[in-house]
Amino acid sequence: MRDFIINGAEAYLPSLSLDCVIFGFHENQGKVLLLKTKNAKQWALPGGFIFKNEDVDEAAKRVLKERTGLSEIFLKQFNVFGEPKRSDANFHRKILKKDGIELADGHWLFQRFVTIGYYALVEYSYVNPEPDSFSEQCTWQDIDDLPELMMDHREILDQALRTLRQHLSYHPIGYNLLPQKFTMPQLQKLYETILDKKLDRRNFQRKILSYGILKRLKAVKKGVAHKAPYLYSFDLPKYQRALKEGLQGGW
Amino acid sequence: MRDFIINGAEAYLPSLSLDCVIFGFHENQGKVLLLKTKNAKQWALPGGFIFKNEDVDEAAKRVLKERTGLSEIFLKQFNVFGEPKRSDANFHRKILKKDGIELADGHWLFQRFVTIGYYALVEYSYVNPEPDSFSEQCTWQDIDDLPELMMDHREILDQALRTLRQHLSYHPIGYNLLPQKFTMPQLQKLYETILDKKLDRRNFQRKILSYGILKRLKAVKKGVAHKAPYLYSFDLPKYQRALKEGLQGGW
Repeated sequence: MRDFIINGAEAYLPSLSLDCVIFGFHENQGKVLLLKTKNAKQWALPGGFIFKNEDVDEAAKRVLKERTGLSEIFLKQFNVFGEPKRSDANFHRKILKKDGIELADGHWLFQRFVTIGYYALVEYSYVNPEPDSFSEQCTWQDIDDLPELMMDHREILDQALRTLRQHLSYHPIGYNLLPQKFTMPQLQKLYETILDKKLDRRNFQRKILSYGILKRLKAVKKGVAHKAPYLYSFDLPKYQRALKEGLQGGW
Repeated sequence: MRDFIINGAEAYLPSLSLDCVIFGFHENQGKVLLLKTKNAKQWALPGGFIFKNEDVDEAAKRVLKERTGLSEIFLKQFNVFGEPKRSDANFHRKILKKDGIELADGHWLFQRFVTIGYYALVEYSYVNPEPDSFSEQCTWQDIDDLPELMMDHREILDQALRTLRQHLSYHPIGYNLLPQKFTMPQLQKLYETILDKKLDRRNFQRKILSYGILKRLKAVKKGVAHKAPYLYSFDLPKYQRALKEGLQGGW
């Protein structure tokens, strides 16, 4: 950590950071990946800085990979948080002091940082959370029962969730979050978990089918008394196109 | 301009800029506000830098106000453009040289800039375009017939338009773009202009009414032979709530 702090000004773009809100979904539960800050009671979003010659989106992928082990994940920039007062040099100064690190007032870590917010959606049973050098723990926390977060991280998290819910109107979701074959109730449950509300079964089915991103698989005879539910999978070329161009059924 | 260039490193956050895609709509035409760069054939988006103690969104409002005279306008951050190669020091160096300004290699204007993209929607007959100190003209250009743009500004513009179209699925638009009282065909025409496609009249009416943001005004007898079309106005409290929370009729 000392190297990182001392050499940061050389290595990273000044004044700019990024924070990732990594949502995890598994068996109808919504979680978010948080780091417990060393020497403080607050938790933090996984975040980092951008190398001087690094693409900003690549930097976000790097942070996601470092904290979760995952790559090739849906990761989306959603907002820039740029209030002058959001950076809190004193907070960092106190934490570092407890580790015996004292830095001059003009040190790069104490400058104003504008942060770029990203959100990601992952199946949380696939993830191996890894703390960074400022943290003692990296764990999943229930969206409904969050610990105290540092600085404006709670606001960043809340806005990520609002944005994710709005994006459901024009982005497909579900790939990588559900098994390869799934039932309509499984897909509906995923939407209900993200939206935190019940949806009407018929309306859900009509609407989701109208997007044209699902393939209904051949029914398999199971020899059971009542009819097995149909299985679906995503039609990947159509899913990818919808990710780029937006879902049908908007305007 | 010389003052700005010499003192910029003191005044502004390093490495960070913003660019505004200002869409203008008037009588079924879509335009975008562009600046003709001095000493170069390319055009540019209105943009600027962020003062060291200035909120990022406030900086965008300041730029919009400086170029258009307008404030209180719907202005939305939509993406960060952060490729390392997007900044082109040579382009700026050549332009400045033609003005007799030669700067050292490490000058702040020649660093890598990450830029924050905003878009705005305005009624373009209300706007008095004002060039900035790098530009010789500031004018409206047809969306369908754009001149060559500098750096990655064309990509920024295209992405703003794609985002605006997607946002129509969950954001209301029209306030400040239409007269206070308007007909359903006027509102439909605005959507058609933005989307660059025809919409079905009945479906449009059903969907837009389902959002609950319109008030139908009392029909006024005009003494003409055939029925006058109903006039509508936006229900502002509901419109503002929808801007914040998203339109009804999503999930």
